[in-house]
Amino acid sequence: MALRDDWRCSAGTLLCRLSPKRQACIYVDMATSEEFSLADATSVLTRTPGTLDALLRGLPDTWVRCNEGKDTWSAFDIVGHLICGERTDWMPRVRIILENGETRAFDPFDRWAQLNEGQGKSLEQLLDEFARLRQENLIALQALKLGQKDLTGRGKHPELGVVTLSELLATWVAHDLTHLHQLSRLMAHQYRAAVGPWSVYLGVLQCAGHSAP
Amino acid sequence: MALRDDWRCSAGTLLCRLSPKRQACIYVDMATSEEFSLADATSVLTRTPGTLDALLRGLPDTWVRCNEGKDTWSAFDIVGHLICGERTDWMPRVRIILENGETRAFDPFDRWAQLNEGQGKSLEQLLDEFARLRQENLIALQALKLGQKDLTGRGKHPELGVVTLSELLATWVAHDLTHLHQLSRLMAHQYRAAVGPWSVYLGVLQCAGHSAP
Repeated sequence: MALRDDWRCSAGTLLCRLSPKRQACIYVDMATSEEFSLADATSVLTRTPGTLDALLRGLPDTWVRCNEGKDTWSAFDIVGHLICGERTDWMPRVRIILENGETRAFDPFDRWAQLNEGQGKSLEQLLDEFARLRQENLIALQALKLGQKDLTGRGKHPELGVVTLSELLATWVAHDLTHLHQLSRLMAHQYRAAVGPWSVYLGVLQCAGHSAP
Repeated sequence: MALRDDWRCSAGTLLCRLSPKRQACIYVDMATSEEFSLADATSVLTRTPGTLDALLRGLPDTWVRCNEGKDTWSAFDIVGHLICGERTDWMPRVRIILENGETRAFDPFDRWAQLNEGQGKSLEQLLDEFARLRQENLIALQALKLGQKDLTGRGKHPELGVVTLSELLATWVAHDLTHLHQLSRLMAHQYRAAVGPWSVYLGVLQCAGHSAP
């Protein structure tokens, strides 16, 4: 297993550079489980708080508080959920893998804990809290100075069984993206009727809501 | 048709306020074609350039240039496409409706024009260009001082037939969101293998790619 932990190009980038005039490069899976770059992963993790802040801060409640129907999430819920992940999921699980390997299963993650997290708070407070916790966690991650051997370390998920540290870190990134995906979908959903006949052209309105809890 | 053009609450917001402790409010379509708020729409349109900037500026090429396979788009392509929309689609169509109504069909929108738009430019240049054009267009939109009667005005789409100005403006918003949806999906796609068994939990990896061109 060859792990990359620096800013060198992945195979995908190299292909792009071979054809600099093409806008869409030939697809190469940039990070299989055999080739994971911690730097690539943290480059996204670092940007998520700012992305959500730019999208959501100051938006009218019509966008922030509404959802896709019964038992689905609002933008407010999503930010609360991401906060819970920073507190109880990602870095605690990194440490369990490093300290206990497969001998101790992760604690299960409560996907509804944000119902308490957001109680009595404004969206702006949640955005600030998420940014602070993410920054702290990325500093803590960097301080671990993870090497190739660490990234192949194995842990035990209570439902999925054996997982590796690099899979956990890749999932942290994809989890951010799954909630950005959900957020764009739930916001677009509010305009399902308002767009009139254009709905057939708008991919986000065809999405079946895979990210719903 | 009752159009809202201010910051008053929609039905959805009112429901949220009736139950302030609930995080997820009961779903009410916040903007049917009968109730469209120009202020709600522009609140999202204003934020899209900053959102894309926060997510993409400075990201390694591995994230920016790769896509989901042959004939699909990269982050670079998406920003180029949004620039083309600012230049040739949204405000030109607003003006065609106001000046010509249904008597003149819109010019068709070239969905591949960004292949030329991005030629020889960096992502950072495209992000700057998109932000500048969006700002200019929103200033121009505000200067039109659209009233309820204007928003119900009808135009002619070359394929969809009769559309209204409020539908065009709602589509401008949903189009931003469809490409944010696409962007989160194509980025997550790069980690399809890297997340290992977690893939079953990640909604974005189940998305069938409705936003592909």
